[in-house]
Amino acid sequence: MTSPTLKPISDASISPRRWDTRRRDKAQRLERVARYVQGKELRSEDAVNLIAILLEPGDRIVLEGDNQKQASFLSACLASLDPGQIHDLHLLISSITRPEHLQLFERGIARKVDFAFAGQQSLRLAQLLEDGQLEIGAIHTYVELYARMFIDLPPRVAFICADQADRHGNLYTGPNTEDTPTIVEATAFRDGIVLAQVNEIVEQLPRVDIPGDWVDLVVASPKPYAVEPLFTRDPRQINELHILMAMMVIRGVYERYGVTSLNHGIGLDTAALELILPTYGASLGLKGKICRNWALNPHPTLIPAIESGWVESVHCFGSEVGMESYVAARPDIFFTGRDGSLRSNRVLCQLAGQYGIDLFIGSTLQMDGDANSSTVTHGRISGFGGAPNMGHDPHGRRHASEAWLKLLRGESPIQRGQKLVVQVAETFQRGGVPAFVEELDAVEVGRSSGMPTAPVMIYGDDVTHVVTEEGIAYLHRAEGPEERRAALAAIAGVSPIGLRSKTEDVARLRRLGIVSFPEDLGVSRLEAKRSLLAATSMADLVRWSGNLYKPPSKFRNW
Amino acid sequence: MTSPTLKPISDASISPRRWDTRRRDKAQRLERVARYVQGKELRSEDAVNLIAILLEPGDRIVLEGDNQKQASFLSACLASLDPGQIHDLHLLISSITRPEHLQLFERGIARKVDFAFAGQQSLRLAQLLEDGQLEIGAIHTYVELYARMFIDLPPRVAFICADQADRHGNLYTGPNTEDTPTIVEATAFRDGIVLAQVNEIVEQLPRVDIPGDWVDLVVASPKPYAVEPLFTRDPRQINELHILMAMMVIRGVYERYGVTSLNHGIGLDTAALELILPTYGASLGLKGKICRNWALNPHPTLIPAIESGWVESVHCFGSEVGMESYVAARPDIFFTGRDGSLRSNRVLCQLAGQYGIDLFIGSTLQMDGDANSSTVTHGRISGFGGAPNMGHDPHGRRHASEAWLKLLRGESPIQRGQKLVVQVAETFQRGGVPAFVEELDAVEVGRSSGMPTAPVMIYGDDVTHVVTEEGIAYLHRAEGPEERRAALAAIAGVSPIGLRSKTEDVARLRRLGIVSFPEDLGVSRLEAKRSLLAATSMADLVRWSGNLYKPPSKFRNW
Repeated sequence: MTSPTLKPISDASISPRRWDTRRRDKAQRLERVARYVQGKELRSEDAVNLIAILLEPGDRIVLEGDNQKQASFLSACLASLDPGQIHDLHLLISSITRPEHLQLFERGIARKVDFAFAGQQSLRLAQLLEDGQLEIGAIHTYVELYARMFIDLPPRVAFICADQADRHGNLYTGPNTEDTPTIVEATAFRDGIVLAQVNEIVEQLPRVDIPGDWVDLVVASPKPYAVEPLFTRDPRQINELHILMAMMVIRGVYERYGVTSLNHGIGLDTAALELILPTYGASLGLKGKICRNWALNPHPTLIPAIESGWVESVHCFGSEVGMESYVAARPDIFFTGRDGSLRSNRVLCQLAGQYGIDLFIGSTLQMDGDANSSTVTHGRISGFGGAPNMGHDPHGRRHASEAWLKLLRGESPIQRGQKLVVQVAETFQRGGVPAFVEELDAVEVGRSSGMPTAPVMIYGDDVTHVVTEEGIAYLHRAEGPEERRAALAAIAGVSPIGLRSKTEDVARLRRLGIVSFPEDLGVSRLEAKRSLLAATSMADLVRWSGNLYKPPSKFRNW
Repeated sequence: MTSPTLKPISDASISPRRWDTRRRDKAQRLERVARYVQGKELRSEDAVNLIAILLEPGDRIVLEGDNQKQASFLSACLASLDPGQIHDLHLLISSITRPEHLQLFERGIARKVDFAFAGQQSLRLAQLLEDGQLEIGAIHTYVELYARMFIDLPPRVAFICADQADRHGNLYTGPNTEDTPTIVEATAFRDGIVLAQVNEIVEQLPRVDIPGDWVDLVVASPKPYAVEPLFTRDPRQINELHILMAMMVIRGVYERYGVTSLNHGIGLDTAALELILPTYGASLGLKGKICRNWALNPHPTLIPAIESGWVESVHCFGSEVGMESYVAARPDIFFTGRDGSLRSNRVLCQLAGQYGIDLFIGSTLQMDGDANSSTVTHGRISGFGGAPNMGHDPHGRRHASEAWLKLLRGESPIQRGQKLVVQVAETFQRGGVPAFVEELDAVEVGRSSGMPTAPVMIYGDDVTHVVTEEGIAYLHRAEGPEERRAALAAIAGVSPIGLRSKTEDVARLRRLGIVSFPEDLGVSRLEAKRSLLAATSMADLVRWSGNLYKPPSKFRNW
């Protein structure tokens, strides 16, 4: 029975191996901090000391810096460690948002970072990289970073945040569940240590978002965790160009393709879209026919459409400050728990947005002649966030829908539909800077930062439609790259790309339906007025919500 | 302050609306069944009656039929309902595997199905469709179906299964966590009802996989839930052609591209690959350089590579019958919980496999001249399972890796790498049926079943490499569709596609490195012997595992 090939079994190099080194390491670390801990609970004043004992130089850690909520107490603790003791940490963090995130590198506590988005810290991040104080593993989208935690980047310790914990370590996240379950799962089930900061420790949680089983340590932080309103757009800032483009999208895309399930990026264009559904959209008889099911954070500008009965469901990546009571009062629309408040989940909403919806629309600041786009600007390393995961055609999709089938490609019997990926851009940005350019700034940024590829947000070959105030380019209908470029140029105004356009080309493309101007779509520029907005101010949104929406003070000007 | 556009607020059509209809409906249904329930617990003998009262005609329900585990008690209960009382159900189910799944349709209890995979029931499913007894919403991949539960297909009731529950409804899934958390989240947070069958109800769970908060009803089933060993391949069935192809993949793909993170499909080719890592792979000095991090179920044929120190980590979609003790004894490799056993999670492993790894390799039975492939055969509607999600290039990926960068496409500064998608096929299947054909059977199946598109498993434009016993076609290196076709034909033997190949073309393609024969790769056909397998039998695998692996009886022949 014994096979001659079994020899390797007795090979000395492989025999006496421990298979529980991670588990033993975890037990030893928890043992080291045991004197600071009662049950799973530690005192906030002990946090820095405990973290110093818990960690070892070179550890790979994950710090909850989500798109929205921030483990701000724990990040401050980490930044005040003694770099003589703890150094060369490898930091996994979705969003580098807080000053202390980069203090970790300035102070020599951390050395390497894998992240997804840098936002306001992007300039300083680029400087630290140039100064050699920081090493970038890779720049990801949010879900890519989580994916790698299950593959080659398992965290040793996770520093996370939640609203409340009970004595068993069960966690209640409230509406901003976001990324916490995913980060905890990646850590806890690979014998990593999970340390949660919570706003308070209570006897009985309103609901359980994360089982206490998965959590090792809990600290009540002196102040609630930080969270920013990122998805609030003041309707006052919406102008007639935004409204014109929104009208074109409704007629030329949503109505034409029968788009029922979708995701909106953040921007004034998409805010305008949300706000003219109950007015312009209703006048076209489209209620119930388009925009029913959403993968979207709770955008305040969606309130009028919800209240007018346009919306069947909204699944959320995260929450939005001020929307808590409104969402809780609309459980038929939002995903809510037994406690009544929102349950969001970034990974599941990304899944829903990738495989369950027909359209993504987002704004861009810069696009090249091949419809590649990026929001990267010189001297900044801003990262990707989540847009690339929404803004591409998912080749792993196999089910059909009405909208998806309208983009069948190819003549052969082997066809597939396509996700609608719509990019909106005014031909010129503020200050007269053209949006359509010969080369994206991202190319130079990538080159000068030593990135292996240029940090392109949305690739042109994934884009099906580009919308400007001039019209819509139906790129998916174009034959070959030359015609795609001509279609894009036709709506690029007097930008460098637009100036390439030839009158006779444009006429032909309009005849073929590859380019449409507003008049081709039955959209009158004269009608593009702010009076079409169902709400023209934050106060209007509050009124639509029946006073349930509570805008953060910076948005309250009445 | 009041804007003239606020008129819709007072519109009679929108004002008095209830926003908690789902929640009230849930409360009413639970009230109806309260007399059968103590705490959350019901008696198994009451289950059919309770389900009959709980449900209403036309309900959309999800039944846990995962890839592996099956809520077999609940499916039997559902199939024995009175169709006069409960009918026209809309069934969401990942895998139609059990006879009673289709009895639901034969008996008129269910009417419409949205699913991902039909397997052994595929023939009967096709017949029911033809007979008009069943309506198909769409055929999905697993994760697509879950995605839609968060968008336009929210379930009213979820019928799920787990190993154990406690009195609070907390669930312990054991190693086969699989899809349960995702299904429960989609249902519970949209005011649906979650009914779990468990093998037993206990005082104290070994660990919590799903919080009791999310679960409404629990029943201890008379028999444990059904689960099949799907990922076990007996090494005895591996022949020299499998081994030859495995050698070519190691030299021509894994070594050449530096593939460290990967997923293997199920098949004898990939089982051979796993089994020659500790022998052939080691002789090439590749240990530690390739195949370190896996997104993979616990394949028994991976045991020798794990024991030989090749493998750093394995994250799992599900588990595998018989592998429980082995996995529990290797926590450094597998994701395990406090109880010591595996924690799997299909959605997170799909995420990891899509965005966190560099290569997918799978076997196919049929491929056309453009490298489109399918396992669909006439008269069957087998669905997709999970392969399409692994077997495509994820356009939402933005981070780079060594392997990914080796597939940079295009000359422009806007480049991106690509996932390696490798398809393995012998040029002829058993019985002399050619694997390479003019037209996939899937095309005719799609047409005759009225599918909107042909059920293609992996699209040719996503495939980077095709491997046969003749050689490797490096499709991603080919320029244009003609050269791709020529490269594929060059390795397609004497199949209809292979016969198109011209000798002078082949020589040119080999010179360009677009086609490689074994001799081009330094692989000797004479070395492709079964003696290269680190295990040649199930008994060998058991020995490698230190008797921790317990093969199911059907695989035990000693």
